[in-house]
Amino acid sequence: MKNVLHGRCTGCGKTHAAVPALYTCPACGGIIDIEYDYDYIKSGIAREPFAARTEFSMWRYREFLPVEEGSPRPRLRVGASPLYSAEALGKAIGLPRLYLKDDGLNPTSSLKDRASALAVVKAKEGGFSRIACSSTGNAASSLAGNCAAEGMETVIFVPRRAPQGKVAQLSIFGALVISVDGNYEDTYRLSAEAIEKWGWYNRNAAINPYLVEGKKTVALEIGEQLGFRSPDWVSISVGDGCSIAGVWKGFSDLSRAGLLDRMPRLLGVQASGCCPISTAFTTGEPVARAAENTFADSIAVGVPRNPGKALHAMRASNGAAVSVSDGEIMEAMRLMGRFAGVFAEPAAAASLAGLKKAAAEGIISPGASAVCIVTGNGLKDVQSGIAAAGEGVLALPPDMKELERALAGRCIC
Amino acid sequence: MKNVLHGRCTGCGKTHAAVPALYTCPACGGIIDIEYDYDYIKSGIAREPFAARTEFSMWRYREFLPVEEGSPRPRLRVGASPLYSAEALGKAIGLPRLYLKDDGLNPTSSLKDRASALAVVKAKEGGFSRIACSSTGNAASSLAGNCAAEGMETVIFVPRRAPQGKVAQLSIFGALVISVDGNYEDTYRLSAEAIEKWGWYNRNAAINPYLVEGKKTVALEIGEQLGFRSPDWVSISVGDGCSIAGVWKGFSDLSRAGLLDRMPRLLGVQASGCCPISTAFTTGEPVARAAENTFADSIAVGVPRNPGKALHAMRASNGAAVSVSDGEIMEAMRLMGRFAGVFAEPAAAASLAGLKKAAAEGIISPGASAVCIVTGNGLKDVQSGIAAAGEGVLALPPDMKELERALAGRCIC
Repeated sequence: MKNVLHGRCTGCGKTHAAVPALYTCPACGGIIDIEYDYDYIKSGIAREPFAARTEFSMWRYREFLPVEEGSPRPRLRVGASPLYSAEALGKAIGLPRLYLKDDGLNPTSSLKDRASALAVVKAKEGGFSRIACSSTGNAASSLAGNCAAEGMETVIFVPRRAPQGKVAQLSIFGALVISVDGNYEDTYRLSAEAIEKWGWYNRNAAINPYLVEGKKTVALEIGEQLGFRSPDWVSISVGDGCSIAGVWKGFSDLSRAGLLDRMPRLLGVQASGCCPISTAFTTGEPVARAAENTFADSIAVGVPRNPGKALHAMRASNGAAVSVSDGEIMEAMRLMGRFAGVFAEPAAAASLAGLKKAAAEGIISPGASAVCIVTGNGLKDVQSGIAAAGEGVLALPPDMKELERALAGRCIC
Repeated sequence: MKNVLHGRCTGCGKTHAAVPALYTCPACGGIIDIEYDYDYIKSGIAREPFAARTEFSMWRYREFLPVEEGSPRPRLRVGASPLYSAEALGKAIGLPRLYLKDDGLNPTSSLKDRASALAVVKAKEGGFSRIACSSTGNAASSLAGNCAAEGMETVIFVPRRAPQGKVAQLSIFGALVISVDGNYEDTYRLSAEAIEKWGWYNRNAAINPYLVEGKKTVALEIGEQLGFRSPDWVSISVGDGCSIAGVWKGFSDLSRAGLLDRMPRLLGVQASGCCPISTAFTTGEPVARAAENTFADSIAVGVPRNPGKALHAMRASNGAAVSVSDGEIMEAMRLMGRFAGVFAEPAAAASLAGLKKAAAEGIISPGASAVCIVTGNGLKDVQSGIAAAGEGVLALPPDMKELERALAGRCIC
């Protein structure tokens, strides 16, 4: 990997060779960050500008990715998700210059596909044939899907509360699913022990530094889709902390490669029923274990694994953190559906709810441009969609007279 | 529309001006087909070859689409779905040269987005602000989503059996949903009366000739993705008959514009619990009303609205029709998930089940290349996904000893 220098520990600062199974720091157990040779990257882009590229997937940004030059691109098309200009929705939340990045249109319907695709490549480079992870759902289904397409095996640890849609995906993709009777923390611990014992490739967020590198491609795409002019703000929901860390890394990469004028400010959004990271951001205190009381299952992470990179992303970008109630998330789901035609899962809608709150509280000014990252498809969690939508359905017999009466009540006559 | 000549009735042959609200033939009630000036189309492609285009959506093929030159492109990114080479899955069904076209990655997760996007443009051209349709689900949710993104209103008629995921999408998108206590036929009839009475734009399949034109873009994409070399076979599930008609039209368009060497043979697949069109194809008898006994709700259409165009597609392409049981569809869902990492809804998996059957019966030879069109995402109907996947989940307490015992039973030790 001529573009990669090494992995550097975010704790003790030591550098380590960027081998596929580089997880946490061998010296201190700290989280690793992959460092690049930006001069090498710049020369690659100079030779072949993005506008001339015909690859439409996350692999369009290959010089920013820590994979061997000869590694085959995985089969599923991950990335290249659309960025929508969403003025009507923006007006509804007080930020007319709003964009939606719909990452629910990835192969397994979440942003996590970006991380899993990278994990699959690294596992193959390392000669592994089985990959494991623990997950609230999306990381798992994305790993299972991306592995199935490559003929690799997966062992998935999910907490019992994972929504049916996500578990159905796992089973269909042929994963070995361990449903753990406990919370995310219990699930995570069991997976860590098992991975250690059986020597599987580890696709656990934070532990595996390559995942953030996959996730960052969402920011690389936003950058290119906006003509390499940075938006004022980018909002994303926060669970373990790896996704917002990826967003920061992506914009930072573009900036260091001389492609972006400035960094956007990052808004990290948590559910108020589980907000250890946004609390730490606001209070300045260390991150403390939190309860997991929210229907936004993808970000219900009481003991986040990567709070350091997440807090760094918000602080280094002069950003902010907010937390939003489940009611505010449901309202955001309705608004996004009605005004933009995008159906988001609760955690994904949280990022819109956070923007609304940040605008209302004056954290973001009304004239600012903002990108809301939609991290997962609402079809992942239909029950929550139904709860959010409310009962708007008119149930009727097949009879015109009945229909006329019912519609008169809706002012259609 | 310089590329469009007129609409021609497939019944009496009369031509009619291609106005936005051209539905069935004003003379005889027959189904209309839009006819093009292929010389005009050829000159457009000569000026700007596809390889040079940067538009990645169905609007990449604008000269093949019946829209005014000045009509704005709708907001949601419809089309540009991936075509995967799927050898492992192909081997599992006896057709190693298999490709999957995953149209479940459209904005509302089905191929129907292609038709709805076109309907939205035509409705706007005609000055309509409200669009209506009846649907087993996917047409409805795609219409609701595409309309929401454009600030248009939708009235949707669904039969009561429509799966929850699809109805949740409708409500989230703010559609006025009429849930009809009856089958698809009852639902359709009520919608037709209501559309007539209130003058809404009609997005009912078959009635509106522009929908097939939107659907055909899936074939245009397959053509380009295969380097304008036709596959031997293309398989798609059949309900009303409009989608396979669209596939035929797309390949025919490419052929008539001189872009394709030959036409692929089309395989139309129905569920054996509801197969009026495949029965008519096989027997040569007229299409007869059928029961709607299949879990593949998207193709459970007992009284298809467009059997003529569907039968023509199969016959004119020297194709075939098969029907597959619900059990065969479930097996296809599992195979597609495990060997290709694609989660298909039942109707979408039917097209794979049909290919497997056609290969087993010698209709398709093992060396043939075949494209399986995946018409909708499995997340649309999670219950069926769970039913198809079976109970493969290991439920355990968070305890390593228990895990070791359980995995030993799976030969992991």
